[in-house]
Amino acid sequence: MIKIAILGAGNVATHLYKQFTKSNAVVVQQWYNRTFDAIKSFQNETEVIDDLSQLKEADVYILAVSDDAVASLSQILPFENRFVVHTSGSVNIHDLDKKNTRGVFYPLQTFSSEADVDFNNVPVCIESESKGKLALLKSLGEALGSKIYKINTEQRQTLHLSAVFVNNFSNQLYRIAHEISDAKSINFEILKPLIQETARKIEDMSPYMAQTGPAKRNDKKTIKRHLKQLESDEHKAIYQLMTDSIKRTHGIVERKRTKPKN
Amino acid sequence: MIKIAILGAGNVATHLYKQFTKSNAVVVQQWYNRTFDAIKSFQNETEVIDDLSQLKEADVYILAVSDDAVASLSQILPFENRFVVHTSGSVNIHDLDKKNTRGVFYPLQTFSSEADVDFNNVPVCIESESKGKLALLKSLGEALGSKIYKINTEQRQTLHLSAVFVNNFSNQLYRIAHEISDAKSINFEILKPLIQETARKIEDMSPYMAQTGPAKRNDKKTIKRHLKQLESDEHKAIYQLMTDSIKRTHGIVERKRTKPKN
Repeated sequence: MIKIAILGAGNVATHLYKQFTKSNAVVVQQWYNRTFDAIKSFQNETEVIDDLSQLKEADVYILAVSDDAVASLSQILPFENRFVVHTSGSVNIHDLDKKNTRGVFYPLQTFSSEADVDFNNVPVCIESESKGKLALLKSLGEALGSKIYKINTEQRQTLHLSAVFVNNFSNQLYRIAHEISDAKSINFEILKPLIQETARKIEDMSPYMAQTGPAKRNDKKTIKRHLKQLESDEHKAIYQLMTDSIKRTHGIVERKRTKPKN
Repeated sequence: MIKIAILGAGNVATHLYKQFTKSNAVVVQQWYNRTFDAIKSFQNETEVIDDLSQLKEADVYILAVSDDAVASLSQILPFENRFVVHTSGSVNIHDLDKKNTRGVFYPLQTFSSEADVDFNNVPVCIESESKGKLALLKSLGEALGSKIYKINTEQRQTLHLSAVFVNNFSNQLYRIAHEISDAKSINFEILKPLIQETARKIEDMSPYMAQTGPAKRNDKKTIKRHLKQLESDEHKAIYQLMTDSIKRTHGIVERKRTKPKN
């Protein structure tokens, strides 16, 4: 049985807490948060505390707090030579105070407070400065039902950046499509199956192979008409930039117009 | 029983052919293509022809050809006062020759030649200059198992444009994430659950509500670090533009630096 303490009360902390309590391999011994109110509703299930000095010995302390708080919280922990991990995609493992053995337990997924999380679909990226502790983090991830990947800090930071592209930016493209279609009284439902299929398709083939459309075909007539249709300069700029990006990826080279010299 | 003729042999034509042959409500009487070779393997199932003059009377002629070919093919059809539809997202209904009654039967989905298509997930957008023919198109769409939406040409062209954003451009974001993570020897599999969840999430909430991440939080430190991490100018430009777009959507206004006057 792995004994853990969770520190923090945000989405990641809460989803981890809920999922760990379902596992027989892990016990959440204590749940700490700076402000007691955020976690007090769980006081009948586990020991909830707002005082770091009350932290008992545990196999791992999971700092599921905001990026900015990781370093400072790790510094004020009132113990040393124990195993402390953070859950951030972007914080360096060495930002944790070196008085404890350091590690990372980064679940790569979009967590919202409302929706339930299926941890089978949450890859967990683990890192540890102590090789011996990797097995512990692996067991912890498996207790969640997650797939485990061993990656280093640079890779994790790159994953975090990649996640912004596939999650935040894709979602903003959905938003733009929503705006454009709303303006013409089109039911956004019509686009949802295409959105699902676009994501599903890359399960079977690379995004490179999955690409279609006017940019990939270098269909100048359609591209020109689309740019004309767009009413917002921002949308035009995004259309142009993404079209150029697709062309470059697929080796479509345009002859550049020669600019007259001064 | 609706008698149809399909004209063309591309992905849309082929998927429509295959699905219609499964329906008891529709019979594909003839399948025409300019070059016989593309369709001759189906000659034991239906009448395949490469000569327009052989076209028999049908309830509807479906021109599933490339955008550029719609108008010209409609002009050389050797009959009039029949019902002719195209399947394009961007071609105006009036680009069809007016000697026949005109309509549109636009399945909004990404079709690849290999993969089977589940028409339950293919919304079909219909339009007709004859109100009486709309019911026919509706039955045709239902025979495929599709959801039917009545929309006009302007709306259809806007949908087609929106589809470029959610399909081609999202896919290119996946591609960029693939490039970035490959460069650091990261298994792209790690990002796939996030890609699926990003698409799935908007089934339950609007893209506006679903947004998260550094741009939405106006987390300048992370944005700055991400921009520094990116090695390609193109990726930096996309990151910047999409970040600005998210900020604008969520009302995050930056104070502009005053430029010194000349």
